[in-house]
Amino acid sequence: MANLFDSIDPEVFKSYIFWSAVLVIKMMLMSVLTGSQRHKKHAFANPEDAKTVKGGKLNTNDPDVERVRRAHLNDLENITPFLAIGFLYLLTGPSATVAINLFRLVGISRIVHTLVYAVFVIPQPARGIAWMLAYGSTLYMAVKTALAFL
Amino acid sequence: MANLFDSIDPEVFKSYIFWSAVLVIKMMLMSVLTGSQRHKKHAFANPEDAKTVKGGKLNTNDPDVERVRRAHLNDLENITPFLAIGFLYLLTGPSATVAINLFRLVGISRIVHTLVYAVFVIPQPARGIAWMLAYGSTLYMAVKTALAFL
Amino acid sequence: MANLFDSIDPEVFKSYIFWSAVLVIKMMLMSVLTGSQRHKKHAFANPEDAKTVKGGKLNTNDPDVERVRRAHLNDLENITPFLAIGFLYLLTGPSATVAINLFRLVGISRIVHTLVYAVFVIPQPARGIAWMLAYGSTLYMAVKTALAFL
Repeated sequence: MANLFDSIDPEVFKSYIFWSAVLVIKMMLMSVLTGSQRHKKHAFANPEDAKTVKGGKLNTNDPDVERVRRAHLNDLENITPFLAIGFLYLLTGPSATVAINLFRLVGISRIVHTLVYAVFVIPQPARGIAWMLAYGSTLYMAVKTALAFL
Repeated sequence: MANLFDSIDPEVFKSYIFWSAVLVIKMMLMSVLTGSQRHKKHAFANPEDAKTVKGGKLNTNDPDVERVRRAHLNDLENITPFLAIGFLYLLTGPSATVAINLFRLVGISRIVHTLVYAVFVIPQPARGIAWMLAYGSTLYMAVKTALAFL
Repeated sequence: MANLFDSIDPEVFKSYIFWSAVLVIKMMLMSVLTGSQRHKKHAFANPEDAKTVKGGKLNTNDPDVERVRRAHLNDLENITPFLAIGFLYLLTGPSATVAINLFRLVGISRIVHTLVYAVFVIPQPARGIAWMLAYGSTLYMAVKTALAFL
């Protein structure tokens, strides 16, 4: 029997899966980065964590820890919608060239976003541009998808 | 060859896709709303952002900015689970009428939730009711799905 | 017509769906737990909520409320990526035994994580181990998926 997924171009599907997996890995690495900042700055969010390290204290206001946490939350706000809408956008029958390049753009922009936000802090508009490229591409896919299934 | 997706009613699937895309767009607009509140109140979370605006300061406690951020986080806590479970619920072979109306209810309730939380602040129980309708519908789908694949 | 989903082993698919639904339910219950802590401690985040309870005050620093909120955010950071990557991992043609046990491990570890973080607080390394088992399993699936669709 047929179903809606039969219409998906396998090359476009593979590109979506690859970039989704890369972005999931990238997003998950933020947890490791937060943990390493908490240990470096001895700034923990829970008493039971502070006790595991000599000199560990409760501190939920350390600027370096909070910066990484903001970058992680920004991933949740931007990568999670991409994971869902990128998949549904596949069902709108997009041009393979457009779709594959949108996935690449989202993937690379979000990696750059993390690098300039939480690894090597660079003055604006570096982060703003990286954010905007991924945001615009994801929003474009979402609008196309909503209109295609109106 | 057959697969589990063959069982999905195309009308129900299209309704899920449409409302998912609408909710992704709605959720993504919270970023724009946060940015606009940060600029209006000159309250920024990063030093490199504060520098881009005359009179910009670091402030992570502005009540208007924090209200929009809470509404955004509430979306992540409620819309993201819907995106996943609404899709898997399609595979339980639900009644088309029930499923399509649940998707509509989640979609409209979450739009109302944002309006009464972060755009026109209205006394409770307005937000509580909007939250509960979407929450209850999503939880119902999740329980039905877990039981169907036990 | 054929599509990528035809390759999914139905038993593995059903296991993914079941554990995803369980984890969505578990994650959604964090909202109820937060609400119950807010009422117990009379600590609300919005003025319109504080007004609904005699003695309710604005307080975004109550340690018991914040603990539940951190557990909820940790779910968003870990369960949401699993929902996406668990599904895409199905398309890599994994061994049924490996895949089903990974899904079980993620599901059970995340339930234990919540119990030791926000219900019965237990000294480390209880929470660290629960977190690591789910994190490692999810990251393994993500890396396998990225490599399979490189």
